[in-house]
Amino acid sequence: MNLNIALLPGDGVGPEVLAQAVKCLQAVEETFNHNFIYREALVGAIAIDKKGSPLPDKTLQLCKDADAVLFGAIGDPKYDIDPNAKVRPEQGLLKLRKELGLFTNIRPVKVFPTLIENSPLKKEIISGTDFTIYRELTGGIYFGEKKLNEKGTVASDLCEYSEKEISRIAHLAFKAAKNRRNKLTLVDKANVLESSRLWRKVVTKIGESYPEVNLEYLFVDNAAMQIILNPSQFDVILTENMFGDIISDEGSVIGGSIGLLASASVGDDNAMFEPIHGSYSQAKGKDIANPIASILSAAMLLEHFGLFEEAMAVREAVDKSLEKGIMTPDLDAKSQYGTNQVGDFIADNI
Amino acid sequence: MNLNIALLPGDGVGPEVLAQAVKCLQAVEETFNHNFIYREALVGAIAIDKKGSPLPDKTLQLCKDADAVLFGAIGDPKYDIDPNAKVRPEQGLLKLRKELGLFTNIRPVKVFPTLIENSPLKKEIISGTDFTIYRELTGGIYFGEKKLNEKGTVASDLCEYSEKEISRIAHLAFKAAKNRRNKLTLVDKANVLESSRLWRKVVTKIGESYPEVNLEYLFVDNAAMQIILNPSQFDVILTENMFGDIISDEGSVIGGSIGLLASASVGDDNAMFEPIHGSYSQAKGKDIANPIASILSAAMLLEHFGLFEEAMAVREAVDKSLEKGIMTPDLDAKSQYGTNQVGDFIADNI
Ligand SMILES: CC(C)[C@H](C(=O)O)[C@@H](O)C(=O)O
Ligand SMILES: CC(C)[C@H](C(=O)O)[C@@H](O)C(=O)O
Repeated sequence: MNLNIALLPGDGVGPEVLAQAVKCLQAVEETFNHNFIYREALVGAIAIDKKGSPLPDKTLQLCKDADAVLFGAIGDPKYDIDPNAKVRPEQGLLKLRKELGLFTNIRPVKVFPTLIENSPLKKEIISGTDFTIYRELTGGIYFGEKKLNEKGTVASDLCEYSEKEISRIAHLAFKAAKNRRNKLTLVDKANVLESSRLWRKVVTKIGESYPEVNLEYLFVDNAAMQIILNPSQFDVILTENMFGDIISDEGSVIGGSIGLLASASVGDDNAMFEPIHGSYSQAKGKDIANPIASILSAAMLLEHFGLFEEAMAVREAVDKSLEKGIMTPDLDAKSQYGTNQVGDFIADNI
Repeated sequence: MNLNIALLPGDGVGPEVLAQAVKCLQAVEETFNHNFIYREALVGAIAIDKKGSPLPDKTLQLCKDADAVLFGAIGDPKYDIDPNAKVRPEQGLLKLRKELGLFTNIRPVKVFPTLIENSPLKKEIISGTDFTIYRELTGGIYFGEKKLNEKGTVASDLCEYSEKEISRIAHLAFKAAKNRRNKLTLVDKANVLESSRLWRKVVTKIGESYPEVNLEYLFVDNAAMQIILNPSQFDVILTENMFGDIISDEGSVIGGSIGLLASASVGDDNAMFEPIHGSYSQAKGKDIANPIASILSAAMLLEHFGLFEEAMAVREAVDKSLEKGIMTPDLDAKSQYGTNQVGDFIADNI
């Protein structure tokens, strides 16, 4: 297969971990006789520094022209604290999601049995956890009208959803549940929010076309509790943008190895793959960042194009590195392998 | 001291647990020679059923006239699922908060050393956790304009904050931090939301008047992770209404004994005290609900009026019941004491 892949290394440890994912894709090309073309572009804080914009037009065009985007990480502490900063790296990411129409963010939360001791939760609670969050990614309060009055004393954000925005992701989530354990949990705040009540109405209606899927409803505050108390109850969670941001980050730490978690953001015409973890600037250039989340996001990319055998080869090479203890210190303080060494080992085993 | 206390038992196990709190207050009256007057009124699902409104005018007036409100619980599953229900029990609670001007919700999150094994988190992670969440309670997306277009296909909620709404709670949070460990963490989403940027600006400015307090900033998604990964890092957390709802419920389960957690909602002229837990309708009338959260909310009420010795007597009686194992089965499956028995034991020990 021929694939055009846009590489967006971004900030912090993004470039280092992305380089390992590319190594693995190259190994896949060789082993399985594919032809991937990689084109790199700037995004985030580094794009602000070099081009004055967190998402330069050239970068956006490259992504639009590509079959898929492989993303590193975004964000730099120097932009975080100043509430008056006019340009922020995150704007690049948000614009990219919107422009590419990536309305669904898919985040698997899974416990790696060999690493179960790393979980902050007790073993009996985390054991068996395996769910996927479908987070709406191009609507809601992230993209609603923002206002600040002239005096700078009143600020607002609008959370708006349309039936269409809800139904397109709902169908994807129901289909995913059908291919898994037939359970879908809608997370909302329908006891308070009008937009949540629309979510409930639309999703309930769509649920009638998926009679085999058991649809449940959970208020977001309760969901935040259940993810800690009983995470293995979940199969597929569906939720809006802001709740999804919070809930999926909460979900990402319960397994104890955020450095292993990948995500996909998909739309009708485009798809982007990236690690869950952020730019982790303190680790930049130190060859200590865990490359596995980035490598597994490459595996999700392969699956997206139906290259299941190839993706499996990547996943098995990852498992092998974990079994052999070829890992970065975040997973095991006694493992002193560098980002590059782990990447090499996994690529060599594909 | 003379105090007029409005009692709002509400739904589910609310009446049962509130009755135990009243027992304890009566014991305080006797032991310390005070004179409390109790007046009861309807709120929530039961008020809908009996009076057609989740907050009848009479109830509201009673609360306004009282020195403080002691609240049970609200909510009934029969109102939860129907997205089209015109009246919902929660509206009663929201209206009460707004009408009484209870702009600050204070939720202590503490681990009871004797119950540390109940935590879903590993002991080394939860140990030493002791923080308090200051959640804004009468603004933000809860109370902003709600819209649904005529066709019912587009819905929205407005999240709006003014400088005034932010600064009044910020001052309370800074003062609390001064009396604790001098650390305040503002939780927001300033990398995305205009309202969060206003929070950051206002709180940063107010922080200059509290130079001894160390002010930190945390994005809400990161906060959802940190509460699990390292909860003992927090002292006082300050946040807006919706984030506070999620974060404080997450915080309430990490100790493993939500049945022990109380909260206060305060404003300029009124104050309300209630357990964290909800109406827990499945347990209604079974004499199994844990009354301690309700009893400790009575202790918070006493502290609010400066009756520190009295509150301490209540807290010590609670500790004694925990030490002696006089507790409901939620804390220890082997303890078969009923709601009433636990309430009696604690009241007798005041
Ligand atoms: C960087 C930030 C804007 C982003 C978000 O909130 O969506 C991030 O937290 C994420 O979840 O991808
Ligand atoms: C019942 C509901 C409206 C309420 C809220 O969201 O504020 C509850 O969850 C709480 O936290 O007190």
